[in-house]
Amino acid sequence: MQKIFLLTPGPTSVPPEVLSAQSKPIIHHRTVEYGEIFMQVCEDLKYVFRTNNTVLVFTASGTGAMESAIVNLLSAGDKALVVKGGKFGERWAGICEAYGVKMIPIDMEWGDAVDPATVKAHLDKDKDIKAVCTTLCETSTGVLADIKSIGEIVKNTPAVLLVDAISGLGACEMQTDNWHVDVCVSGSQKGLMIPPGLAFASVSEKALKMSESSTLPKYYYRWSDYFKSLGKKQTPWTPAVSLVVGLAEALKLMKAEGIENVIARHAKLAEAARAGVKALGLELFPKVPADALTAIKVPEGIDGVKLKNMLDHKYDIKVAGGQAHLKGKIIRIAHLGYANYTDIVVGIAALEMSLADLGYKVEMGKGVKAALEVLHS
Amino acid sequence: MQKIFLLTPGPTSVPPEVLSAQSKPIIHHRTVEYGEIFMQVCEDLKYVFRTNNTVLVFTASGTGAMESAIVNLLSAGDKALVVKGGKFGERWAGICEAYGVKMIPIDMEWGDAVDPATVKAHLDKDKDIKAVCTTLCETSTGVLADIKSIGEIVKNTPAVLLVDAISGLGACEMQTDNWHVDVCVSGSQKGLMIPPGLAFASVSEKALKMSESSTLPKYYYRWSDYFKSLGKKQTPWTPAVSLVVGLAEALKLMKAEGIENVIARHAKLAEAARAGVKALGLELFPKVPADALTAIKVPEGIDGVKLKNMLDHKYDIKVAGGQAHLKGKIIRIAHLGYANYTDIVVGIAALEMSLADLGYKVEMGKGVKAALEVLHS
Repeated sequence: MQKIFLLTPGPTSVPPEVLSAQSKPIIHHRTVEYGEIFMQVCEDLKYVFRTNNTVLVFTASGTGAMESAIVNLLSAGDKALVVKGGKFGERWAGICEAYGVKMIPIDMEWGDAVDPATVKAHLDKDKDIKAVCTTLCETSTGVLADIKSIGEIVKNTPAVLLVDAISGLGACEMQTDNWHVDVCVSGSQKGLMIPPGLAFASVSEKALKMSESSTLPKYYYRWSDYFKSLGKKQTPWTPAVSLVVGLAEALKLMKAEGIENVIARHAKLAEAARAGVKALGLELFPKVPADALTAIKVPEGIDGVKLKNMLDHKYDIKVAGGQAHLKGKIIRIAHLGYANYTDIVVGIAALEMSLADLGYKVEMGKGVKAALEVLHS
Repeated sequence: MQKIFLLTPGPTSVPPEVLSAQSKPIIHHRTVEYGEIFMQVCEDLKYVFRTNNTVLVFTASGTGAMESAIVNLLSAGDKALVVKGGKFGERWAGICEAYGVKMIPIDMEWGDAVDPATVKAHLDKDKDIKAVCTTLCETSTGVLADIKSIGEIVKNTPAVLLVDAISGLGACEMQTDNWHVDVCVSGSQKGLMIPPGLAFASVSEKALKMSESSTLPKYYYRWSDYFKSLGKKQTPWTPAVSLVVGLAEALKLMKAEGIENVIARHAKLAEAARAGVKALGLELFPKVPADALTAIKVPEGIDGVKLKNMLDHKYDIKVAGGQAHLKGKIIRIAHLGYANYTDIVVGIAALEMSLADLGYKVEMGKGVKAALEVLHS
């Protein structure tokens, strides 16, 4: 009897209420009925983003919402400061380069978190920087960035602060307005607990103002069309109706729990995961770990690809391996979205058994015990 | 007891097999399991597109796939010939303009079909035209374009032929390869019978060659990344997994019926709809009607918006009204995708009753009789 646990950092497990909602007969998107659902979703997204700004909804992967920020704010030759140090920081860089934006990288070792002082030094030195591109939770390394401190710096400059909170939103603390984030980007298949296919971007007054002078070409992602359509409770292009209907259900669940409780739940799960992992003698990969996922260094002598496959095929626990040069060197266990203590218990238990299978010395149950002590505290 | 019939030209009704498939627990997209489903989908799309070329899959509305064609093929200042004459022809024009492509319009009255000789005259006169942008079934007017004849003309020039077959594919005859179509674009929520959120573009050798010299900026829609990822049975960005899983089911249904039979079914349904409508003394709007939907002139003295609302609220039949300057002047009844004789019978019956409710002189049952005579022939 197979029971699959999807502990990957996106897509994440989808609650049954959402699966059921999105399997209802499809409705047309230019109707009063859809308009009401859509406007409720837009309102509830503001609650989750902790913003009073409009949150735009795109039918796209999260990358599409990131691209929307660049093409609506900047012009060719503009300068953007990009915090790298992971696959998703590099995505900001790639988008900038594709559009002829002068990309100033803050290069870091993967696993390191950016020092806000470095951001400040760049902005002090170069007054022409128009955008600062960052990542709340760098999914490829499990690192959390100190967006609050970066926001305090960027707000005093003409630059806008763009935050990729695709895997971070709804898991890590993210206060869009209080932290002076101009564009917070997210996706549907992480903390928002629905399948992939929707992407989001909140837009501050400062960003809106900057967008007026942007000359980069855009059509599908042209924000002004999305703002115009919002007045008619619509999107400019046919939206992914079934996903929006599913999202309405997921947001209801988040409101019922309360966003502070959602964040606190993730903090507890993450703490338990870290305790469990450390009790097994394993090391965390990130210097500053985010609460959406736990990235673990594969111990000396163990093949990380084999470990991932063991978890996957013998124990039916789906986790992520390392990307790029980290392939085989780390594994990433998410506790993100529709997750509670059961996922941690099962995840750590399977990790113990898999490690033992591969010849790593494990005192069986030690990791679970440490996790339980946190979960039960 | 309410029974809703969704007879809009997208989204269209979704078969229960598809609704059920897309409500299964979500799977991760970088797995063998997903890769197999995705590659089968790519193969089956070729069958439906009638092409041996690769069909790229985007997480986007159909408009996204249209934009992908422009930004991957052209450079700023290039010339594109655009067949207008409806909202979706105008969309090609809008995309070209947004990207600085010199757009040469073939302007037509809405409802008219383009004369292939006009396309030839333009191409003969101006050898610099790099792309011809057309629409198989112009959803806003119900007009069918003669893509086959246009293809015979364009193939002898350096230009590529782009066809928006978003509402046409799987309803109207569309032979991508035989008709020398370089890029055939479609969407998920029409003839392919799944919810909106996926878009497609087939890419010919000629298009692939032209894409090598394109300098328009692109990132999310950069074809080369999609081709590269296909080698790993993936897409570059997280795909709309639940929709791809649903599409796999829908394509199974289409293969089981056979694409020729799918097209013949739509031809029959369209013929029946047209017969029913004419028997009621109504006129068709398009000069050359497509088989995906039937656009009808609202008769003198009847308010088209009221007619649509009557169908919608009293009879639970969802149809589309006119767009832009046709608002209130036409109604559009789709027989597209998951549709059979029952939809025609119910649709025409409700149309008769609604017209009678609004004071139009109807010999009750006359439209249905005419439709049945076609359906039963």
